Amino acid sequence: MKKYCDMTAAELEAEYLSVKAKYNELCAKGLSLDMARGKPGPDQLNVSMELLDKVTSDSDIHSRDGVDCRNYGGLDGLAELKELFADILKVPVGNVIVGGNASLNMMFDMIAQAMTHGIGAEPWMKQGTVKFLCPVPGYDRHFGICEYFGIEMINVPMTAEGPDMDLVEELIKDEAVKGMWCVPKYSNPDGIVYSDNVVRRLAAMKPAAKDFRIFWDNAYVIHPIFGECAELLSIFDEAKKAGNPDRVIMFTSTSKISFPGAGVAAMAASDNDIALIKKRMNYQTIGPDKLNHLRHARMFPNIEAVHEHMKLHSAKMRPKFETVLNVLDFELKDCGVARWNKPQGGYFISLFAPNGTAKRIVGLCKEAGLTLTNAGATYPYGIDPDDSNIRIAPSFPSPAELQVATELLCTVTRLVSLEKMLNL
Amino acid sequence: MKKYCDMTAAELEAEYLSVKAKYNELCAKGLSLDMARGKPGPDQLNVSMELLDKVTSDSDIHSRDGVDCRNYGGLDGLAELKELFADILKVPVGNVIVGGNASLNMMFDMIAQAMTHGIGAEPWMKQGTVKFLCPVPGYDRHFGICEYFGIEMINVPMTAEGPDMDLVEELIKDEAVKGMWCVPKYSNPDGIVYSDNVVRRLAAMKPAAKDFRIFWDNAYVIHPIFGECAELLSIFDEAKKAGNPDRVIMFTSTSKISFPGAGVAAMAASDNDIALIKKRMNYQTIGPDKLNHLRHARMFPNIEAVHEHMKLHSAKMRPKFETVLNVLDFELKDCGVARWNKPQGGYFISLFAPNGTAKRIVGLCKEAGLTLTNAGATYPYGIDPDDSNIRIAPSFPSPAELQVATELLCTVTRLVSLEKMLNL
Repeated sequence: MKKYCDMTAAELEAEYLSVKAKYNELCAKGLSLDMARGKPGPDQLNVSMELLDKVTSDSDIHSRDGVDCRNYGGLDGLAELKELFADILKVPVGNVIVGGNASLNMMFDMIAQAMTHGIGAEPWMKQGTVKFLCPVPGYDRHFGICEYFGIEMINVPMTAEGPDMDLVEELIKDEAVKGMWCVPKYSNPDGIVYSDNVVRRLAAMKPAAKDFRIFWDNAYVIHPIFGECAELLSIFDEAKKAGNPDRVIMFTSTSKISFPGAGVAAMAASDNDIALIKKRMNYQTIGPDKLNHLRHARMFPNIEAVHEHMKLHSAKMRPKFETVLNVLDFELKDCGVARWNKPQGGYFISLFAPNGTAKRIVGLCKEAGLTLTNAGATYPYGIDPDDSNIRIAPSFPSPAELQVATELLCTVTRLVSLEKMLNL
Repeated sequence: MKKYCDMTAAELEAEYLSVKAKYNELCAKGLSLDMARGKPGPDQLNVSMELLDKVTSDSDIHSRDGVDCRNYGGLDGLAELKELFADILKVPVGNVIVGGNASLNMMFDMIAQAMTHGIGAEPWMKQGTVKFLCPVPGYDRHFGICEYFGIEMINVPMTAEGPDMDLVEELIKDEAVKGMWCVPKYSNPDGIVYSDNVVRRLAAMKPAAKDFRIFWDNAYVIHPIFGECAELLSIFDEAKKAGNPDRVIMFTSTSKISFPGAGVAAMAASDNDIALIKKRMNYQTIGPDKLNHLRHARMFPNIEAVHEHMKLHSAKMRPKFETVLNVLDFELKDCGVARWNKPQGGYFISLFAPNGTAKRIVGLCKEAGLTLTNAGATYPYGIDPDDSNIRIAPSFPSPAELQVATELLCTVTRLVSLEKMLNL
């Protein structure tokens, strides 16, 4: 097949009628499909069921240090689990806090703390306008936290090796820029792994704001789909080397290792920041659910056990990603109207349709029975300035459903691209 | 024995030498006792072990409504657990949110929300000074939250039927008074149950601040020790009747029903406030640990099951409270130097020593090997203006330990009282 851009008007017309007919056929099927949610499928949840047998009425309910995990206490989590997360995040164990079931909650609380109490300086709420750099496309819930707190968001385009660092280094000259969101490994939704160069520049840069922090959401730190887990340079070490020890606050969780709703979240930060965070937590809670910590510590005695376990997940994910990627290749490669990434890990495939078409594509998919993440959701304020990016979440449906769903998505992408080219 | 106040100087001197000798004897024993912590004893934790068998790898992991409790979602908790807490708190189920393992966390978040976003009005942080009424003695962690957020605390003395309402009604004329802490049943530490009259006055009063809220921490809602559970008038209903539907935000948890560190917390509020809270939570979390919800829902299918279960706790608590109360009676009643409450439920016994002696009593107990809650901890800023109140927590030690510990406490109380009377 010719590329659409090489077609004559008559060829485009014919193609349009053919694609339109195919779309109508698919509509007539009364489909009900969903590629919107970045949540593990039931098959993935099943691989962690033994977690639920790690603490029962017959079990010893004491941690390695003899803590009765049923009772109050232990602000920063069980020692054995802190060690595990220290290994996962590649930071010293003293810089880790293990919390409840949601890293999002830890991020929200961290921003809330900075707003009301500051982080090494005056409370952000008392400093006037606060701005955050947001690599785009990105994670809608990061942007949501900023929106809730009235933090102004500035888009920073992603490159193949991470955020556009020239732009970042320019933007941080504004003292109101207090922070930046990063998903450094298998980024949401692009699946990009930050290069060593990007990590070093992020660690070494000199923002005007003395209380600038990178919110380093390493949600997919240990989540390869194809092959070995990617290497990511330690920003914690690089920042220390560069004389910016307080540069980064790191987050991760077992949401996509054990159970999304009943996992364990963790964070890490510099000595200074950990002290500030613990001071706040001291007022906020008597401690996390240590029985759930104990379950996880027993299920994952060390990082090797986690790597082994992640193979079970990637085995479930691989055919799903392959299905979507194959259909995209088959349906969209030749006509040349869209581009997409081929992630090696994480939870998403990021599709870029022609500018000005994403909303209509998502809308027409919806009409045909396929739910996708709202167009724009991957950008601050829900506004994709190019109206181009569509986030595909292949984890929840079955490969068979993904086949049909992606065929529909491709058909619609072609249809709307043709409409645009034909000024329909 | 004569009351100390009826003794002659010579009699007081003789008594002092005798008590001092007894104290020295106790010191020589090298005791190591702790009545500081309001946490359930291991014997109490053992009564809930079957909770851990309610969700294992063999279990159905779906809620009543078919929700896969392992996955993401469900902002306000499992329906069956919301129903249970609605029954416990005597509110409609739609006004309940079930959360994580700590009601303290819910209270902290609620105050944080009011500070940054307001609750039905401007953010408190933008309204200048914010003040809270604090019935005293009270719960140190309530006061801690206020301290963290720079909220000015005003002491309100407790009476036998709750806070001094004449004073409360006077103080709320100040528009800066935005809230009030209440532990309305088996109050911490006095064990007082608010009378119907107090509840009605709290519900009906007209504070100058339109965004005034009572933080109703019903931590011991279903926690009798002796006899039946006390009745508490529903402030939720009374406030609605009085035309103040947004008066109260309620909190409770299973921390002292199932496990302190691994229970489930809940809150309830008016329709308006629940909508504001859910809006915040929507940015803050993807949902609570639903597997722990499921465990609790299966362990406690209805409120009757909770009442039955609480009998197991009260059976453990009764001999402990009896021991402390008996020793207090035996050692301190005749000499007339202190007063204390005889709570029918809750977790504490509140001892009032002569003014100006509590710090020294706690200090001398410490020297003899008995840890007590710091004197002053039951007051805002850690300052008991009378230096009189000492909080006794009988739940954790064994009755045998409590016997020795309370004897020591009584000996020290007599000693320090005598020092004061003799101007030593």
